[in-house]
Amino acid sequence: MKQIDVVGMGPGCREKMTEEAYLAMQQSDVIIGYTVYVDLVRDLFPDKPFLTTPMLRETERCRMAFEEAEKDQRVAMICSGDAGVYGMAGLIYELRESWPEVEIRIIPGITAATGGAAELGAPLMHDFAVISLSDRLTPWEKIEKRLIAAASADFAICLYNPSSKKRSDYLQRACEIMAPYKNPETVCGIVRNIGRDGTETKVMTFAELTVYKVDMFTTVFIGNQETRVIDGKMVTPRGYRDV
Amino acid sequence: MKQIDVVGMGPGCREKMTEEAYLAMQQSDVIIGYTVYVDLVRDLFPDKPFLTTPMLRETERCRMAFEEAEKDQRVAMICSGDAGVYGMAGLIYELRESWPEVEIRIIPGITAATGGAAELGAPLMHDFAVISLSDRLTPWEKIEKRLIAAASADFAICLYNPSSKKRSDYLQRACEIMAPYKNPETVCGIVRNIGRDGTETKVMTFAELTVYKVDMFTTVFIGNQETRVIDGKMVTPRGYRDV
Repeated sequence: MKQIDVVGMGPGCREKMTEEAYLAMQQSDVIIGYTVYVDLVRDLFPDKPFLTTPMLRETERCRMAFEEAEKDQRVAMICSGDAGVYGMAGLIYELRESWPEVEIRIIPGITAATGGAAELGAPLMHDFAVISLSDRLTPWEKIEKRLIAAASADFAICLYNPSSKKRSDYLQRACEIMAPYKNPETVCGIVRNIGRDGTETKVMTFAELTVYKVDMFTTVFIGNQETRVIDGKMVTPRGYRDV
Repeated sequence: MKQIDVVGMGPGCREKMTEEAYLAMQQSDVIIGYTVYVDLVRDLFPDKPFLTTPMLRETERCRMAFEEAEKDQRVAMICSGDAGVYGMAGLIYELRESWPEVEIRIIPGITAATGGAAELGAPLMHDFAVISLSDRLTPWEKIEKRLIAAASADFAICLYNPSSKKRSDYLQRACEIMAPYKNPETVCGIVRNIGRDGTETKVMTFAELTVYKVDMFTTVFIGNQETRVIDGKMVTPRGYRDV
């Protein structure tokens, strides 16, 4: 069976995986992924062969998946969160032209925007924008434009990849760009290690977020004009209450 | 146990539920939800008591959940898709002040943006905006502003609630508002009945979408400048390939 399932495994723990994602891994002949994600599921499938590549080797990892599928192996290509949100689904389709006989199936998963939101309370609720601060694959000017658009139209905003070793000040830069459109008291929040041991959440103001230090395991939430703190939770009302 | 689990049940089928969502329903004393969603899970839990309210009775439904929890019932309040994306998570927190002793837990689920994306291919992949076209709880002017912001900053866009009996022309209106910022050839797609029997997908141009008739079970995807059609699938490249 020449098939690649591109599997969104969610944050990594069994409970936050869908049944479909779990079964795709269980029924596969080989599981392929970035080393760190593979380590999250190794214990769930102790007898399964795993193939890994380090970070940033996405094309190599996808080619490896096609090469395995070519050998009639059923492949589970795993992605943290959702397969189609900063995951491998797109690249698998892009590369497919060289292996047209391989069947592709995309299996969605809980992405950090919704997984993290559940930990913080209900920060998104209504219209929202998801923006990655990584400029490895997107010019920074485009990221800036999106930050301004999302802030000025009062979207709730979820920021992925707010920091890395080389980009330790990017969250601060992003906040400065959005500052003209955001009240400094706007309710914001961060979640670290979503759905894993040691999940941390913190609710703060936009002004506090601007100087807050985050790492690469953090997801950032910026409220809209309506967002408030209820019992320590970050909550964006949908408006139902007044109806 | 005075507890409400606000459960994102995904599109409705067992395979696209997380383990955590399934267990929350299984371990509950009563499942509460909008009639249509309850009908999707009734067969999974044949011995469970269910309480339902019709559409638009969200506050009544949430109060019902608190009243049951007060009686030491463990409540699963179910939402289609994700609990925190146009779901009940926010309203439950808003109402909680009258029932401070009730514990709340939010359980994320596969929302239409990621569930629908998986059916179409990989339309989101990178930065994206989610916008509901329903003006029941949001002034239309704000929706317009968000459409313009998302289109002009070249987000991939996912539209929820693109149509209803009273709003049959809203998708067309939304497209006309975005038209100055979108090439008519921009790749778009629709998904109907995500993750259920009779799922339908269709890939088309932005010009075609403008005159396309959708119903309330449809989710709409609008590509960014990079989105293309590969083997009939809607794919937004992340840019990995050139790295």
